[in-house]
Amino acid sequence: MEIILSKKMGFCFGVKKSVNLAKNILKEKKDNQYMLGFIINNPQVIEYFKKEGVKMVDSVDEVPEESTMITRAHGISPIVLKQADQKKIKIVDTTCPYVKKVQKIAQYLYKKHYFIVIYGDKKHPEILSLLDTVQGNAFVVKSILEAEEITKQKKIGLISQTTKNIYNFNKLSFALLNKAKELRIFNTICKSTMERQKSALELAKEVDVMLVIGGKDSANTTRLAEISKNQGIKTYHIETKNQLKRKWFQPENKVGITSGASTPDWVTNEVINTLKEWYH
Amino acid sequence: MEIILSKKMGFCFGVKKSVNLAKNILKEKKDNQYMLGFIINNPQVIEYFKKEGVKMVDSVDEVPEESTMITRAHGISPIVLKQADQKKIKIVDTTCPYVKKVQKIAQYLYKKHYFIVIYGDKKHPEILSLLDTVQGNAFVVKSILEAEEITKQKKIGLISQTTKNIYNFNKLSFALLNKAKELRIFNTICKSTMERQKSALELAKEVDVMLVIGGKDSANTTRLAEISKNQGIKTYHIETKNQLKRKWFQPENKVGITSGASTPDWVTNEVINTLKEWYH
Repeated sequence: MEIILSKKMGFCFGVKKSVNLAKNILKEKKDNQYMLGFIINNPQVIEYFKKEGVKMVDSVDEVPEESTMITRAHGISPIVLKQADQKKIKIVDTTCPYVKKVQKIAQYLYKKHYFIVIYGDKKHPEILSLLDTVQGNAFVVKSILEAEEITKQKKIGLISQTTKNIYNFNKLSFALLNKAKELRIFNTICKSTMERQKSALELAKEVDVMLVIGGKDSANTTRLAEISKNQGIKTYHIETKNQLKRKWFQPENKVGITSGASTPDWVTNEVINTLKEWYH
Repeated sequence: MEIILSKKMGFCFGVKKSVNLAKNILKEKKDNQYMLGFIINNPQVIEYFKKEGVKMVDSVDEVPEESTMITRAHGISPIVLKQADQKKIKIVDTTCPYVKKVQKIAQYLYKKHYFIVIYGDKKHPEILSLLDTVQGNAFVVKSILEAEEITKQKKIGLISQTTKNIYNFNKLSFALLNKAKELRIFNTICKSTMERQKSALELAKEVDVMLVIGGKDSANTTRLAEISKNQGIKTYHIETKNQLKRKWFQPENKVGITSGASTPDWVTNEVINTLKEWYH
C-alpha cells in the first residue's frame, strides 16, 4: 500500500489559534469553566476539554454568574455577548479571525443598505452568529435554486460561510448577476479552505481510495469528502482509526489521506499508523 | 408579406435628449456653430445638422475662440473640456445621462482604489471619454479571452459600455470572480439597450427575415444585428431604404424590423413604406 498525504490538511490557522486560546485558560484550573457549544466540530478535541474539567453548555442560562465561558471558533452572537455581560461572565472569545472579518463585511453591507445574500448552511453556528450581527437582515442560501427566489434589488452584497466550496460560490454569483444594478461580491471563503479543497481534488485524481478524517459535523471536512466523491473516487469519511475497515483496501492500493481544519494531527497519525500496521 | 415591428426600437431617451439639445441652438442661427465628432452614430442625423450649417470638426484646434461647440451623446473628455474653456468656447454638452452615470461610477471606483475593468470597445467614443475621466486608469476588455490577462487584484470594479450585450457582460463577470477578494459589478448597460436587445431576440425567433436599421458605425445597432444573426435568422443591417434589395424577400415572408437607438423614425418609416409598395 502506498499512502499519499494531501499537501494541505489538518488544523488551520484559525482553529490552532482558537484551541490555543481555550487551552491557555485550563492553566488556571478553576472549576467554573464552561464552553458554550463546541469550540470546533471535532469530538476528540471536545473530549479533551471535558476531561480537563470544562463543562459543556448550550445556553448562557446554564452558566453561573462570574464564571468563565469559552465561545466557539465559528463566532459569537452579539445577543449572547450581552447576556454574558449582564451575568458578569468572563468571555474567552475564540472566534476565528477570518470569521470576524466576514462579520465586519456583513455589518458594513448592512450599514450601506445592501440586500445581503449569504452562501451557507442556515443552521451552521457560523451563519447563526453572522445573522445576529446584522439583526437577521440577510438571505441565507445553500443552492442556486434557492437564490432564484430573490427578487430584483437595487444593490446586492454577497458573502459566504468561510468553509464553503468556491466553485459553487462562483455559480451562485452568476445566478445573482441579473438580480441587481450593483452586485458586490466578497469572496470570504478562507484561503486555507480553498487550498485544502484544491489539494484534496488533486489527490483524489491520483489514488484508488480516499480517506477523509474529521468530525462528521464538521462542514469543511464533509465538503472535502464531497469533492472527492464527485471525482468518482471510493471515499470514506471517518472520525478516528476505530472506524477503519480492512475490506475497504487492497494491498496494492494507493490511498490518499486528507483531514479537516478541525482535525488534530494525533487523530490523523493514529489512522496512518493503523494502515501501516496492516500493510507493512 | 407580413411586417412585424420590434416592441422596442428607435430613438432612446438619451438620444432624444441629445438631439433636442443640439437642435435648440440651431434657432440661434449663427455661423459659428461646430460639432466635435458625430453627436450620434447616424449618417442621416449628421446630414441634417450639416444642412443646418453646423460645421463638423475632429479636434478643438479647428474651432475658433468664443464659438459654440456641440459635443457627443457618448460623453466628453475632461481634457477636451479644458481645451475648450481656454478658448472660451461655449459647450453644448449632449452627453447621455446614462453615460454620465457610468463616468461617475468610474470616478468613484478610481477614488476608492479599485482596479477598474471596463467591458467595451477600446476605440468607441464612449470608452475614450470614460477613460479620460479616470486618467486612463482602467483596463478595457472586449472579450473573456482578454480578461484572462488580468492578474490577481485586491478589489476589482467592473462596469460596461452602456450599449453592450448583457449576456456577454455576465460571462465576463464570471471570468473575473477568481481574480479578486472583492468584485464589485455595476450593470451600467442601459435599460433601453437591454430591452431593445431582448425584444429583437424575441422577434428574430418568429420571422423569416430580420431588417436592422441604423448607422453602420452605431455599436448598439450592430449588436442588434449580431443578436439576430446568432439565432440563425437571415439578417440585413441597412442604413436607409436605398440599401433594400428585392431579392432578400419572398412575398409570403414574415419580416421583422428593429432599429438602433440613434435611428430616426423617419428613416425607419421610409424602409417600411418601400416594402409596402413592393408587396402591397
